Amino acid sequence: MSVTPGDVEGFFAREDQLDRDAYVWLDYRFECTGDPRLAAARLCSEQSTAQWHRVGVDEDFRARFGAKVVRFEAAPRPGGFSLDVPDAPRGEVQACHVTLAHPHGNFGPRIPNLLSAIAGEGMFFTPGVPIIRLEDIRFPDAFLAAFDGPQFGVAGLRAQLGAHDRPIFFGVVKPNIGLAPDACAALGLEGWRGGLDIAKDDEMLADAPWCPLEERARLLGAARRTAERETGVPKMYLANITDEVDHLRPLHDLAVANGANAVMVNALPVGLSGVRVLRTHATVPLVAHFPMIAATSRLPGYGIHSRVFTRLQRLAGVDAIIMPGLGGRMFTPEPEVVDNVRACLEPMGPIKPSLPVPGGSDSAATLARVHRTLGTVDFGFVPGRGVFAHPMGPAAGARSIRQAWDAIAAGTPVERHAAAHEELRVALATFAA
Amino acid sequence: MSVTPGDVEGFFAREDQLDRDAYVWLDYRFECTGDPRLAAARLCSEQSTAQWHRVGVDEDFRARFGAKVVRFEAAPRPGGFSLDVPDAPRGEVQACHVTLAHPHGNFGPRIPNLLSAIAGEGMFFTPGVPIIRLEDIRFPDAFLAAFDGPQFGVAGLRAQLGAHDRPIFFGVVKPNIGLAPDACAALGLEGWRGGLDIAKDDEMLADAPWCPLEERARLLGAARRTAERETGVPKMYLANITDEVDHLRPLHDLAVANGANAVMVNALPVGLSGVRVLRTHATVPLVAHFPMIAATSRLPGYGIHSRVFTRLQRLAGVDAIIMPGLGGRMFTPEPEVVDNVRACLEPMGPIKPSLPVPGGSDSAATLARVHRTLGTVDFGFVPGRGVFAHPMGPAAGARSIRQAWDAIAAGTPVERHAAAHEELRVALATFAA
Repeated sequence: MSVTPGDVEGFFAREDQLDRDAYVWLDYRFECTGDPRLAAARLCSEQSTAQWHRVGVDEDFRARFGAKVVRFEAAPRPGGFSLDVPDAPRGEVQACHVTLAHPHGNFGPRIPNLLSAIAGEGMFFTPGVPIIRLEDIRFPDAFLAAFDGPQFGVAGLRAQLGAHDRPIFFGVVKPNIGLAPDACAALGLEGWRGGLDIAKDDEMLADAPWCPLEERARLLGAARRTAERETGVPKMYLANITDEVDHLRPLHDLAVANGANAVMVNALPVGLSGVRVLRTHATVPLVAHFPMIAATSRLPGYGIHSRVFTRLQRLAGVDAIIMPGLGGRMFTPEPEVVDNVRACLEPMGPIKPSLPVPGGSDSAATLARVHRTLGTVDFGFVPGRGVFAHPMGPAAGARSIRQAWDAIAAGTPVERHAAAHEELRVALATFAA
Repeated sequence: MSVTPGDVEGFFAREDQLDRDAYVWLDYRFECTGDPRLAAARLCSEQSTAQWHRVGVDEDFRARFGAKVVRFEAAPRPGGFSLDVPDAPRGEVQACHVTLAHPHGNFGPRIPNLLSAIAGEGMFFTPGVPIIRLEDIRFPDAFLAAFDGPQFGVAGLRAQLGAHDRPIFFGVVKPNIGLAPDACAALGLEGWRGGLDIAKDDEMLADAPWCPLEERARLLGAARRTAERETGVPKMYLANITDEVDHLRPLHDLAVANGANAVMVNALPVGLSGVRVLRTHATVPLVAHFPMIAATSRLPGYGIHSRVFTRLQRLAGVDAIIMPGLGGRMFTPEPEVVDNVRACLEPMGPIKPSLPVPGGSDSAATLARVHRTLGTVDFGFVPGRGVFAHPMGPAAGARSIRQAWDAIAAGTPVERHAAAHEELRVALATFAA
């Protein structure tokens, strides 16, 4: 039975009358035709108990199993739907903003079941609601308690690297695809010598026949130890072990045994559940990269806000979350980047903070803006070509980043500092937009 | 180094000069500012070899590792971008339609690595291209050979059910959330008695404390055998085992040991890789449900077309793919439904066909339209409330579906057949829009 006007009140509740620990809290924006309160009730019904009693049986599952509207706003949209959806219903359109309380006992502390409930058929196929976006999610401590969260977190990463009171400096070895392991190792060594904390594989370079993970980890592990000996500073080689989920644990072990001391997976391609399972096995920091998230998050009016995925990656136990950062190439508004950084760092019950790593075409020329916009030193900075396509080579590329940070930390304009620092001067001349 | 106009030709190729077996073939539509050929070259570069030589080294990775444009069309869009993207570049807009050949040796026959390459940072963060949609993908036999595909496929499902020359009749036990196992089993039994081939769990009902999978499978397994004995026809209980990926194999074994003879997972929430790994373990047909796909596929101008996910589910080995079907609630144009049905059934090298199961608010009132639109009997029909909210009960609900099919098979209008068939008459009166 579909929700009818007489059923609507059963899907509304007062927040103060609910057990806060029994629900996850969901913010949706949607556009609908017809009665917007009926649409909100149907959004609850479709994502929880879609038929709340058997035919001929006097029972009502809504009290225990129904998602409930606890906040409701609606306003007419005289221009109709904001996006063109084929087969959208006709009629006057209302734009709504609701908060739902969804009983997490319906699905339990399991990421696939959570996603199925909050962003599945119920969300996207509510009658009369063709346009909808999941804006945010909040978890009660009772739900968070079932998750491990990051093993190391920001403090653990800093301790391993001996890197305090500054950003963590990553570099993506480039060319990203096509190099043999010895060439990757030679580039990584240069990057570390120049001042990188972490040399990392590109998210598209996994265990390829022309660059096997075992050999790459062995050579980069050896190069890392050389760099540590030469510089006296701890370094990390971050190996991309993205693969089918049954290979993640063996590849983690292979990479670590050979010299990697951090591992990366592409979170959505592998699946957030695969990430969570890897976390239970990992002995080194776990980093996640962002492929596919933009497929659902770019448009302001439809899909799933990127911070939802950031929160879920933190929940799944990712120590450092690489995400789209600032700059024209990333098509990501500053407030969205800041929201995602906050989602990594703000309190989350017993769950440790993840290091936010907003990236995309960064270089010495962009560091000051990133730092200023984020308003914290608790972030990772992850240039690729900004280090490895520096005209003076990767060591100079890395040095240019550290020189830029020295200027920022000293309160000196980066451009002025460049006058006396050749690598920085060349970086700005090469990479500044 | 970013692609400059002088680099563009290195990312274009003639299809007839490429080894067809070495590439996956990708159709994208995108909107860009600036030179559209440069944008297409950058789309290739960003998704393959983003920096194709080391600084100071005379090498060029594009020939072997570069994705290449093999078909290119562009036309001005005088109205600007078709969708409002924050931080989109300014300037005159071109709408482009390209086919790329992407060397699958870059990532290998691994779903997460494939997704990272074709729908990752490269696709969504190409400079000047804020709006893009992956429309389709084609695989060469050399790539398909590494995948098992469905274990049973359409023919295997038909053989197990003894169901030929007609659709396969599923029913989703409702209420979907809140029933105890004995109540689920009683409803399933009624559904089978009325003529369902397959009684299935809702995609939101997994292994819940208030409805444990073990007990549910045991009681539904017993009910299934009762129905088989009474009707003389094979039946299936399809258990939803969606859970964290390390639980899929144990839950498969638990469900099957207790009486389930098919299992379901929610493909994207679990991850397509989790589905593929489950396929290697499964001894019974594997069914997938569609949560989250609409987050990327609903808008005609942005994201990932749903048939890409259908092809990937078939590749991963799903025997029956539940997908959004016809009807106003599903916001899915008929041609898209038909595309997805074809993607299940059309030749795909050595990979067996998957049974397409287009669903959403179906009942005896919608079967004729579904059959007529799909133009085949090779589909599954999956009502929920259309069976389990039938005013005369689930057996009558199932019977109404079979009566509708009898009419269709005989070439009789369903409405006329209803005059002499009470269950069908009530179904049409209750469920017809």
